[in-house]
Amino acid sequence: MSEFTATVTVRLKQGVLDPEAETTQRALERLGFELGDLRSADQFEIDLDAADEDSATERVTEMTERLLANPTLHDYDITVEEQ
Amino acid sequence: MSEFTATVTVRLKQGVLDPEAETTQRALERLGFELGDLRSADQFEIDLDAADEDSATERVTEMTERLLANPTLHDYDITVEEQ
Repeated sequence: MSEFTATVTVRLKQGVLDPEAETTQRALERLGFELGDLRSADQFEIDLDAADEDSATERVTEMTERLLANPTLHDYDITVEEQ
Repeated sequence: MSEFTATVTVRLKQGVLDPEAETTQRALERLGFELGDLRSADQFEIDLDAADEDSATERVTEMTERLLANPTLHDYDITVEEQ
């Protein structure tokens, strides 16, 4: 078994409203910053033991689909690094 | 002027309690997953026009320090890519 750290990034699908990001963008604009667009995402870093990188990725994908992301609203990507 | 996309990742500093991450970790464990640790972070993707990468990075650093991160609680990192 080796130690891996997986990084899961969960984003709203395109077209899904994101009031938090809109509020943040407007607050930055009120401070005088010019920006084209702002999107927000949640990131989870998960440490886990696994036999190899494939099995770590498989388990983290299952965690993401069961709990971390809602497939109706979210897209996600997962990267796994051995520690 | 060129278009850049900056990715800002805002994490709690080590030692700062993160009840949301603890709750997520416990929920995954209740579903039968074994994991060593789970940390959460906020990610912002910001599109902006700038003369060059350095000036884009400088402006996004200022946005982060003024609004997106609280220096008492958070560490952050910023990556900038030309579109």
